Amino acid sequence: MTKTRENIITFLQTLRNTIIREIETFEPTKRFEKKPWTHINGGGGEIGLLRGDVFEKAAVNWSGVSGSQFPMQDGSGSFFATGVSLIFHMHNPHAPTAHMNVRYIETENGYWFGGGFDLTPMGFPYSDDTKYFHEMTKKNLDQFSLDLYPAFSQNAKEYFYIPHRKKERGIGGIFFDHYKTDDFSQDLLLWQSIGNQFLECVLPIYKKRVLQEYTAQEKQKQLEQRAHYVEFNLLYDRGTKFGFLSQGNPEAILCSMPPQASW
Amino acid sequence: MTKTRENIITFLQTLRNTIIREIETFEPTKRFEKKPWTHINGGGGEIGLLRGDVFEKAAVNWSGVSGSQFPMQDGSGSFFATGVSLIFHMHNPHAPTAHMNVRYIETENGYWFGGGFDLTPMGFPYSDDTKYFHEMTKKNLDQFSLDLYPAFSQNAKEYFYIPHRKKERGIGGIFFDHYKTDDFSQDLLLWQSIGNQFLECVLPIYKKRVLQEYTAQEKQKQLEQRAHYVEFNLLYDRGTKFGFLSQGNPEAILCSMPPQASW
Repeated sequence: MTKTRENIITFLQTLRNTIIREIETFEPTKRFEKKPWTHINGGGGEIGLLRGDVFEKAAVNWSGVSGSQFPMQDGSGSFFATGVSLIFHMHNPHAPTAHMNVRYIETENGYWFGGGFDLTPMGFPYSDDTKYFHEMTKKNLDQFSLDLYPAFSQNAKEYFYIPHRKKERGIGGIFFDHYKTDDFSQDLLLWQSIGNQFLECVLPIYKKRVLQEYTAQEKQKQLEQRAHYVEFNLLYDRGTKFGFLSQGNPEAILCSMPPQASW
Repeated sequence: MTKTRENIITFLQTLRNTIIREIETFEPTKRFEKKPWTHINGGGGEIGLLRGDVFEKAAVNWSGVSGSQFPMQDGSGSFFATGVSLIFHMHNPHAPTAHMNVRYIETENGYWFGGGFDLTPMGFPYSDDTKYFHEMTKKNLDQFSLDLYPAFSQNAKEYFYIPHRKKERGIGGIFFDHYKTDDFSQDLLLWQSIGNQFLECVLPIYKKRVLQEYTAQEKQKQLEQRAHYVEFNLLYDRGTKFGFLSQGNPEAILCSMPPQASW
């Protein structure tokens, strides 16, 4: 394994452990269950799954797989792909669903960084949460370049879109793929900062929302909104598609599915 | 509209009404709600949706749409497609989910018949139900030709398969597409008999199973099995794909989704 890959994997595993530790502070009694898996072509990953009292379902997964044929159209030949993927589905319908992914990919055409995060209110959007989420995201990216937030948030608008529902899946966030300038170290710093910053963008929102009271009707509305999330992930998401096409572990790929959904 | 199309549409609408009437006899108080819709390129359809006390969600939809470009790879040019699609998701986890579809398609390369039905126990398969379901299906097809049941049930084995779960979605049934011999009238009779026979294959099973007692654990198991059904429909089903690609009504396409599912 090259030194670059090793450093990137160390970063991802540290990031994942930090996130898991932070989330567990919300949970009076429940803890993440870790489940390692191996990929048929080499490498593997580890699912981290919590079914808690506050986080109805939280998955924080790491994977690092290789193969002889990159299965997507935007690369070719043998590949290495590693990343952390997470999803938070909250008990309280006033607390939005959150998703984050950071990934690093090498194919025979070269390497790139990708990832992003986004927030999906489950029927109950709050304008102060939206404002906070986007402002924090922008503040971090602006340290690198003022061009990044406009570009990455526009990408998210387009990427996290549900065509058949004619709506964005949530309030957006940031998304980037094939990111690479001629300065590897700077790209790496930017990419790492996105992973590192994520919790700061969502935890203050959760701290407020998980204490709100809610009705059975509001819970039902959440389950119906989650159905749209399922549709997006199975019909349109590149991560899901890549996972299945690269013969990834279905259990890890489908970790993002909500604990309950209703149509 | 040609006489053939007219006859076929009349058959489909009569079949649909008969099925709706039969299902309503199971329901002490609930009735189907009908919701017509029109397609942007001509034609349209009607959703028939019941959320009952025995049938947790039943959809019996008719559609007849045309367009200038057939959206699938197995036909080309302008097209006309009409069919009845139905799904029964039962409250009682001991009662299997059932699906049926009959469709007639014309493209510039010619016409064909398609459809099928299959049964999916939701965690609790009963060998006598499986036996009854397949025997009844075979009996009907054997009247036309002894080759049909082996071929159509093998198709179903292959079609109703969930690759990432490495399993069939249920106990099978029959599936056929591009069906056409040189005898149109005989093909039509066969196709109609499949639609007409469907209820006889499933209602006796429902009559037994919906009276069984069940536990909360059994209900939860049903919800988890339904999640696999969602995965099949969104990831692999041709009907869903055709619906979205032909810019069909998302509400009608997604009628097949279970009322509740759990991951």
